[in-house]
Parts: sequence; structure tokens; C-alpha cells
Amino acid sequence: MFDPASLKYDANGLIPAIAQDVASGEVLMMAWMNAEAVARSLESGRVTYWSRSRAAFWVKGESSGHVQELVELRVDCDRDCLLVLVRQTGPACHTNRRSCFYTAIREGAEVVIAEPMAG
Amino acid sequence: MFDPASLKYDANGLIPAIAQDVASGEVLMMAWMNAEAVARSLESGRVTYWSRSRAAFWVKGESSGHVQELVELRVDCDRDCLLVLVRQTGPACHTNRRSCFYTAIREGAEVVIAEPMAG
Repeated sequence: MFDPASLKYDANGLIPAIAQDVASGEVLMMAWMNAEAVARSLESGRVTYWSRSRAAFWVKGESSGHVQELVELRVDCDRDCLLVLVRQTGPACHTNRRSCFYTAIREGAEVVIAEPMAG
Repeated sequence: MFDPASLKYDANGLIPAIAQDVASGEVLMMAWMNAEAVARSLESGRVTYWSRSRAAFWVKGESSGHVQELVELRVDCDRDCLLVLVRQTGPACHTNRRSCFYTAIREGAEVVIAEPMAG
């Protein structure tokens, strides 16, 4: 059986979790989980992070409706990073963009490469 | 102009960097950069991390030959996480697997979903 306590957490008890859109392969965001957030994500099928700023569990989309349905959780070789494959409803980013990684560095300058989603 | 110092680093001066295969979309690994590693990656076109265990710059593939050619560096909305799109030569993982995320949690158990690459 998989035990969330078997993962390697940082000094704050957190592990980075990368959310990837299972349909498009797009990397949507990176946020943090503690052991309980990992357990809740697996149990509920709703990706649940730990909000460092609010010091509270953060069921992604709970207030915005932009939920992440957990398709699969993967662990890396060092057991200190997670990849969550998700079905993302709407934008993952608080700026209303699909992905948080909408700024590219091109020829030494920052370029915005994605616009907020409509609606 | 983009300034690596404009990113948000943690208490150790590090920022997580997610490497994604630009051809397949596969998430290959996550490692850490400091501001100088970001600058070196952009200047050299070779993805360069900061090895926390060795406390040294880590030009990916320098010893193994499994280099990561930087195609594009992207910054997330909070400026505290990077996505590097790469052309990966051979395996990204030290276990000789293409990706470090080769362990999936399925029905509560850990399942190895990728084998080491041949050769």
C-alpha cells in the first residue's frame, strides 16, 4: 500500500506537486502538498494542495469552480516531487489563463504567450 | 530585459524548475536553480541546475551525456517556479529512465510504469 508518509517532505513538511493536463500534456501549475493533502487528493479524487499563504488546505477550484479531477498521481525517483495528471475545468491560473506558465523568455525579454480565457 | 534576480527564490536562494520534453510533452524531472543557474541556462542553451546535495552547479548531462538543450524558459504567474522546455538526449533520470516520474499510485499501490532505456 502507498503511504503518503513515505514521501520526502521539506523542512516545512511540504512536497512540490506539478499539475499536468492529461488531455493536452500542458503543464498547468505547480503548488505544494503536505502528507494530508496527498491523502485527501487520493481519497477524494479532487486535487488538494496546501496553501502556504493561507496555511490551509486548498481544494483546487473549491471557490472558483476550476477544479482539478485527479487522474493519476506519480512520484519521482527521489520521492521528493509529485506529478498529478488532471482533468482541468477552465483555467488553472488565478489570472484566468489555462496555465500559470504564460510568460516566456525570448531573446532576453519577457513575452506573454497566453491570454485569459473567455467567460 | 529579463533579469534572473527578478524571480522569487526560496530561503536558500533556489527556485524549482520543471523540465518538459518539447517534442513529447512528457514531464521529465524537477530540479532547482539559483539566479546564476538561470542566467547560465539562458546564456549557454544548456539547462543548468544547482545541485543541493553537491552544492555545485549541475550542467545536466555534463558527465552522463544526457544533456538538456534549452528550447524555452517560462516563468509562472507568481514568479516562483520555472518551466524549461528541452530537447532531452537519452534518459533524464539517473535510473536511466526517460522521466523521473515512473512510479504511479494505482488503486492505492505503487506501480512502476516505465523501464530503463536500452543502451
